Amino acid sequence: MNPNSRNRAQPLLIVGSVAFDDLELPSGSFPNTLGGAATYAAHAASLFAPVQVVGVVGEDFPESVLEGLRSRGVDTAGIERRAGKTFRWAGRYADNLGSRTTLDTQLNVFADFRPRLPESYRDTPFVMLGNIQPALQLEVLAQAKSPRLVAADTMNFWISGERPALCEVLAKVDLLVINDEELRQLAEDHNIKRAARYVMGLGPKRLIVKRGEYGALLFDQNSTFFAPAYPLETEVDPTGAGDTFAGALLGYLAQSDGLDEGTIRRAVMIAATVASFCIEDVGPKRLATLTQTEIAQRLEELSSLVRL
Amino acid sequence: MNPNSRNRAQPLLIVGSVAFDDLELPSGSFPNTLGGAATYAAHAASLFAPVQVVGVVGEDFPESVLEGLRSRGVDTAGIERRAGKTFRWAGRYADNLGSRTTLDTQLNVFADFRPRLPESYRDTPFVMLGNIQPALQLEVLAQAKSPRLVAADTMNFWISGERPALCEVLAKVDLLVINDEELRQLAEDHNIKRAARYVMGLGPKRLIVKRGEYGALLFDQNSTFFAPAYPLETEVDPTGAGDTFAGALLGYLAQSDGLDEGTIRRAVMIAATVASFCIEDVGPKRLATLTQTEIAQRLEELSSLVRL
Repeated sequence: MNPNSRNRAQPLLIVGSVAFDDLELPSGSFPNTLGGAATYAAHAASLFAPVQVVGVVGEDFPESVLEGLRSRGVDTAGIERRAGKTFRWAGRYADNLGSRTTLDTQLNVFADFRPRLPESYRDTPFVMLGNIQPALQLEVLAQAKSPRLVAADTMNFWISGERPALCEVLAKVDLLVINDEELRQLAEDHNIKRAARYVMGLGPKRLIVKRGEYGALLFDQNSTFFAPAYPLETEVDPTGAGDTFAGALLGYLAQSDGLDEGTIRRAVMIAATVASFCIEDVGPKRLATLTQTEIAQRLEELSSLVRL
Repeated sequence: MNPNSRNRAQPLLIVGSVAFDDLELPSGSFPNTLGGAATYAAHAASLFAPVQVVGVVGEDFPESVLEGLRSRGVDTAGIERRAGKTFRWAGRYADNLGSRTTLDTQLNVFADFRPRLPESYRDTPFVMLGNIQPALQLEVLAQAKSPRLVAADTMNFWISGERPALCEVLAKVDLLVINDEELRQLAEDHNIKRAARYVMGLGPKRLIVKRGEYGALLFDQNSTFFAPAYPLETEVDPTGAGDTFAGALLGYLAQSDGLDEGTIRRAVMIAATVASFCIEDVGPKRLATLTQTEIAQRLEELSSLVRL
């Protein structure tokens, strides 16, 4: 945002899924929509910092999409192309977009995904471990040389099925970014504040709890910060909004190269701002055209929401 | 809060239910708990301004409770005592307090309630129409002489069953205070921002949307304000938290005797603060011992939650 801060922007490594989504939205059917956590996060993060992606795609994945990412300053050397088809998810959203049903999941090449960091990625100071199997998150950390900040996401599937490995990850993570239901499940406590303290006891110095249209909470040992969600009038597609939030958050931190409380609070506000744009169009389309001026304007609107 | 503002505090009239609640909480059974929207609102509002209550109780209602209210500066001349029993509600909360089931409702003397304003209440400048039948809310307004601010609450039952009368009320109301599900139902639109604009088109210049643990939104024609909920570690009984919110809001406005945007935003923050205390103990018990120092401390904590 600040032109000067561009100068000290650090690179950010994002590991996660790259996919095609077949979306059934209230506004229509959108087959073959570009998707995956890493895709959304990379679109958002590249608004702020140079991004490196580790992921896997199949033979069906268009080179033009990778080219598009590269034109945004995303290094795609870590996106492996393998024989077979790209990960595909199909889902249908409720009329109010408040819930969704998975219609189909085809892991395809993602089933055997083993993250391999190109040599040029191993010194990257900011690392975002997308929502993949905890064992694979650990493999990424084994290849990364002392990153300054490691952030991670996870999901209900790993919390219930791979808790020991997940706990190993958490012990090595600086910042955990999860949604409120995942937090409650992980802590086995419905109370968000108690649950946050429990999870920070497992390792992460900071915890960000995403609550969708209700905003996000940032916890550390000493304080709590709350960022509201931007009240949207046009909600089209919530797919990837959480990954967009994480990408913008880490991207802004990498850009700022600062981890003080004030910078992190601003990063959460910016993450909420960028995530709100994501919902305004299908897939990551809106992120692709988003400008710094638009972000700055909406960030000011979001800030004024809580201004006394 | 400001000692000087006490001097210009205006009286506030609250109309609504006075009840006994039989509460099944995760922490135990609490039969015969003092309840009712007007009770909670009066407890909260009397922290800030002189309060007048219009309601009805039965022969079984202890004089000592009315005496307790009077000792808080609540004028109980408008609480009619009638032959029969006091309104009684029984409910059971889920273990996480996130939902509740009504086990029994006995309207008793509340079934024939007709609000009658004592002569001394008719010039009261601030009026809170609790969640009663819209026709009765209109009867209150017919007896009040040009109040400066009329606020109202309502519920799903009246929205679905008495929409025409409710619309008559809305046309005469300055401020509507409802929860998000009621807003969606009233506007027949899941989108909060569009729904808010629709409802303001029905009359209220301002709208406050209560979202429980997710905070509250204040809408007017030109702006939106968001107050977070205070993240509680000890949640005991959410009964009456919404009424406490409304009572504190109106009480603070009556105390400040100002309706500028800044005062209303502060009022929403104070309402969220006082409502959080309500949840910490059974019934209105915590409100009865709440001090200005405790409110000021938590208000500062709540404000710091959103401070960049």
